[in-house]
Amino acid sequence: DPQHLLLFLLFLSPPPSPQSGRAEYRAPDASFTHLAVHRRTGEVFVGAVNRVVKLSAALLELKSHVTGPVEDNARCYPPPSVRACAHRLESTNNVNKLLLVDYTGSRLVACGSIWQGVCQFLRLDDLFKLGEPHHRKEHYLSGAKEPDGMADDWTADSRKKKPVKGSSRLFIGAAIDGKSEYFPTLSSRKLVADEENNDMFSLVYQDEFVSSQIKIPSDTLSTYPAFDIYYVYGFSSRTYVYFLTLQLDTQLTQMEAGGEKFFTSKIVRMCSNDTEFYSYVEFPLGCTKDGVEYRLVQAAYRQKPGRRLAQALGLGPDDDVLFVVFSQGQKNRSNPPRETVLCLFTLHDINLAMRERISSCYRGEGHLTLPWLLNKELHCIHTLQGLMVAFLSAWSPIRFPDCSRSAPQGSELGSFVGEEWRTEQKEMCLSVSCSGVISGRG
Amino acid sequence: DPQHLLLFLLFLSPPPSPQSGRAEYRAPDASFTHLAVHRRTGEVFVGAVNRVVKLSAALLELKSHVTGPVEDNARCYPPPSVRACAHRLESTNNVNKLLLVDYTGSRLVACGSIWQGVCQFLRLDDLFKLGEPHHRKEHYLSGAKEPDGMADDWTADSRKKKPVKGSSRLFIGAAIDGKSEYFPTLSSRKLVADEENNDMFSLVYQDEFVSSQIKIPSDTLSTYPAFDIYYVYGFSSRTYVYFLTLQLDTQLTQMEAGGEKFFTSKIVRMCSNDTEFYSYVEFPLGCTKDGVEYRLVQAAYRQKPGRRLAQALGLGPDDDVLFVVFSQGQKNRSNPPRETVLCLFTLHDINLAMRERISSCYRGEGHLTLPWLLNKELHCIHTLQGLMVAFLSAWSPIRFPDCSRSAPQGSELGSFVGEEWRTEQKEMCLSVSCSGVISGRG
Repeated sequence: DPQHLLLFLLFLSPPPSPQSGRAEYRAPDASFTHLAVHRRTGEVFVGAVNRVVKLSAALLELKSHVTGPVEDNARCYPPPSVRACAHRLESTNNVNKLLLVDYTGSRLVACGSIWQGVCQFLRLDDLFKLGEPHHRKEHYLSGAKEPDGMADDWTADSRKKKPVKGSSRLFIGAAIDGKSEYFPTLSSRKLVADEENNDMFSLVYQDEFVSSQIKIPSDTLSTYPAFDIYYVYGFSSRTYVYFLTLQLDTQLTQMEAGGEKFFTSKIVRMCSNDTEFYSYVEFPLGCTKDGVEYRLVQAAYRQKPGRRLAQALGLGPDDDVLFVVFSQGQKNRSNPPRETVLCLFTLHDINLAMRERISSCYRGEGHLTLPWLLNKELHCIHTLQGLMVAFLSAWSPIRFPDCSRSAPQGSELGSFVGEEWRTEQKEMCLSVSCSGVISGRG
Repeated sequence: DPQHLLLFLLFLSPPPSPQSGRAEYRAPDASFTHLAVHRRTGEVFVGAVNRVVKLSAALLELKSHVTGPVEDNARCYPPPSVRACAHRLESTNNVNKLLLVDYTGSRLVACGSIWQGVCQFLRLDDLFKLGEPHHRKEHYLSGAKEPDGMADDWTADSRKKKPVKGSSRLFIGAAIDGKSEYFPTLSSRKLVADEENNDMFSLVYQDEFVSSQIKIPSDTLSTYPAFDIYYVYGFSSRTYVYFLTLQLDTQLTQMEAGGEKFFTSKIVRMCSNDTEFYSYVEFPLGCTKDGVEYRLVQAAYRQKPGRRLAQALGLGPDDDVLFVVFSQGQKNRSNPPRETVLCLFTLHDINLAMRERISSCYRGEGHLTLPWLLNKELHCIHTLQGLMVAFLSAWSPIRFPDCSRSAPQGSELGSFVGEEWRTEQKEMCLSVSCSGVISGRG
C-alpha cells in the first residue's frame, strides 16, 4: 500500500534525484503490488492492478501501461490464448505479480495474474510492449493473485563482470494456488535477449530427476489443503539469493478443514550458482516488541547501511542490511492486523545463524525439519558415520554449505566439518518446531 | 485369493488342455495378485508377492522366478538403484502389480511394487529375466502395494493385423499413493522389442500440454487426501480399452480426516487409438441382490459367451460379456466384506449406457460429473450453441464419441448429433451423483 511505498523510497541509497527532502506519489487507487527502482536513473516502476506505471525519480508519473482487464478464466490450463477452454471467460483483473528491471535488455519484466501468470517485457523508456511469451508451459508462473517474489542473479555479480548476452537467469518464487502439478513454488529460469526465443523462462537445468525448481509435494497438499508459500520479497546478495516468505505454520495449524490457520515467516536462501537446488535452506524470521510477537512479514527492503548505521551495527560498508515490516501475531495472513513493526536484520547474522544450524546438524544435534518439503523430520546424523555420506549424496540443504561448486565427498567430509565448521555453539534452529526464531531489532 | 483363481480358470474358453474336469493349484501361500493365461498354450502365469510362477494348463508348477525381497525404501525417488537415497533401506517385499503376456516378444511383463514400481521382462519359456528397465522416470508405475490393471492394445487387433515389431502399446492404470507429481493414474505406454531401449514405457504421445496420460489433480488430493483410483481389471474389446476401478465416493465421504470412507466401482472406457486421452469416460457399476447393494468390485473377467449363454442373453458369438465379483456395500475397501456376488454384464449394454449418457449430454440434459478430474460439475450444454463448440474443442470425454480419428468440427456437429446420436431416451448417468448405476445380472 502507499504507506509502504513511501517507506521504501526513504530507505533508498541517495538517488541521483534533483529533489531534496520528501516526495510523494498518490495514484488514483492504492492497488500497488510491486515497486522497482532503476539503480542509475532513480526512476521508479510500479506494478499495480491492470497497469504498470513509470515515475520519475521525483515521483512524477511519466508513463502508464495498461495490462488488463482481460478475457480469462483461472481454470483454463493452458490459457485461452493458447487453446480453447471449456470454462466461461470473463473480464478478469490482471494483478501484477512480479516486477524487475532487466538492465542488460533495457526492459522491464512485468508478470501478471492472467493467463496462468504470464510476463510482459516493457521497454524501459516508454513502457512499449516488446513481447509477452505465453505459448509454452514454462511461460506460466501461476494465476494466484498474490504478489510474488523474484530475485535477479545478475545484480550481485554485475560490478565484477557483465552478464553474457542472453545468459541471464532469474529466481522466481510464486504462490501455486494448490496446483503443484503445473507450477513450481521456486524456480530458476533463463532470461534471454529475444523475447520470442523458445528458451525464454525455461528452467536453467533439467534432467530426468533433478531440475532448477522446487515443487510442493502433493503429499503436503493432501495433508494441508491450504498449504502454499507466499513470496513477499526476493533479492540477491554476494553468492546467495534470498526470499522472504509467508507460509502455513503446519505445527500450529490443525489438520481439520475450517480450523483456525496460523502462519509463519521464513527467510529462504540458496546459492545463486546452484542449478539443482541442493542448497535450499529456510529459517524462521520474526520480531518481538514489548513482549508481543510479530511474525507476519508484510514488506522488506535490502539496503547498504549508511555510514552511521554501519558504525552502530559494527558493519562494513559492503555488508547488507534488511529492513522488514511484520504484522502482529500469526493469524489472518490475507487481512493482517494493523499493528506492525519495522525491524532490522543484518545478512551477516542471518548467514551466521544458518551456518551454525547446518554445522550443529553435522554434529548430530537436533532435527532438520522441512515438513512441507520432506513430509517428515530428518534426524541430524553425525558426519563421520557412513549414513551421513548417503544422506549427503541425496537431496539435502546441506550439500552445498558454502556455495562450493560440488558437494564435499566422503573422506573430505570429516576435516571439512572439523576445521571449517567448528564455530561457537548457539541456540538455533532451521525449523518451525524450534522456538529460537531469528529476531530483528525493532 | 485362491478362490478367485479357481473361479477364473472355470471361466476360460475351453483351453487346449489335455485334462478334463476341474484342476486345482495350491501354492504355499495365498498371496496371488495377478493371473495371465497364454491364449494358445493355456499355460498360466501367476504374479504373487516376491515371485512369478508359471503353471502348465493342467496347473502343475513348471517354473518359479524370485522377484524379492529387495533392499528398498518407498520414499526414495528415484529408487536407490539409480541414486543414493537419504532414507534407510530395508528388506522390502515385491508385490506383483501387473502381469501381461507379450505374445509378440514371447515374454511376460511383470511389474512389482519395489523401486517405485518397475517392470521385469521374463522369457515365457523359462521365466529367465531378459531385462528390468529402471533408469528413466517413465519406468516407474508407483510403489503402491496394490494390484494394478493393465490392458494391452494388441489383442483386440491381432486377429486382423499383426502389430508392427516394436510398436506395441499398453494402457496402464495404477494407484498413485498420493504422488500425483510422479505418477499418472492412467497412461498409454510404448512397449518396444529391445528391453534396454530408451523408449521402453515412454508415453505414446506427449507435447507441451497434452499427453497419453491422466494425472489426479493436486486440487483433488487437497480436498480428499485419501483419493486414489484402484485398477482391479483391464482389458480391450473391439476399438476400446476398459478398466474396472474402485475409487473413493467423494459424494458420500465427508471431507474431515478420520471420517468413514465410502467407495464406488466404475467402469472406465477409452478409445484404444486415442493418444491424447480425450475419449475418457467413466460410469458407475454395481449389483443388487435381494435388495442389498454390492458396489465394491473385487475381480472380473472378460469372456466370449458360450453358445447357450449367448442365446439366453440374445448376443452374437463375438459379443463380449464381463463377469464381475462385487463385495457388499461401499465400505472397507482394503478389507472388504465376505459377502460377495457374481454378476454378469454385456459390453453391449455398457457401451449403450455410455453412449446414451453422452448423447443426452449433447441434448443439454443433466451434468457431466467427473468430480475427481474436473473438480466441479459441468453442465451439459445443447450442441447447437456456440458454447458447445468451445466445450468440445477443450478436454472433454465426448470429443471422440465413437473412436473417430478426429473430433467433429463446428458445423458438422449439428447433423452428427441429429442423425447419428438420436437414440431412445433412457434414465442414465455418468456420475456418482446419479442413482442409476449399471446393474449386472446376479
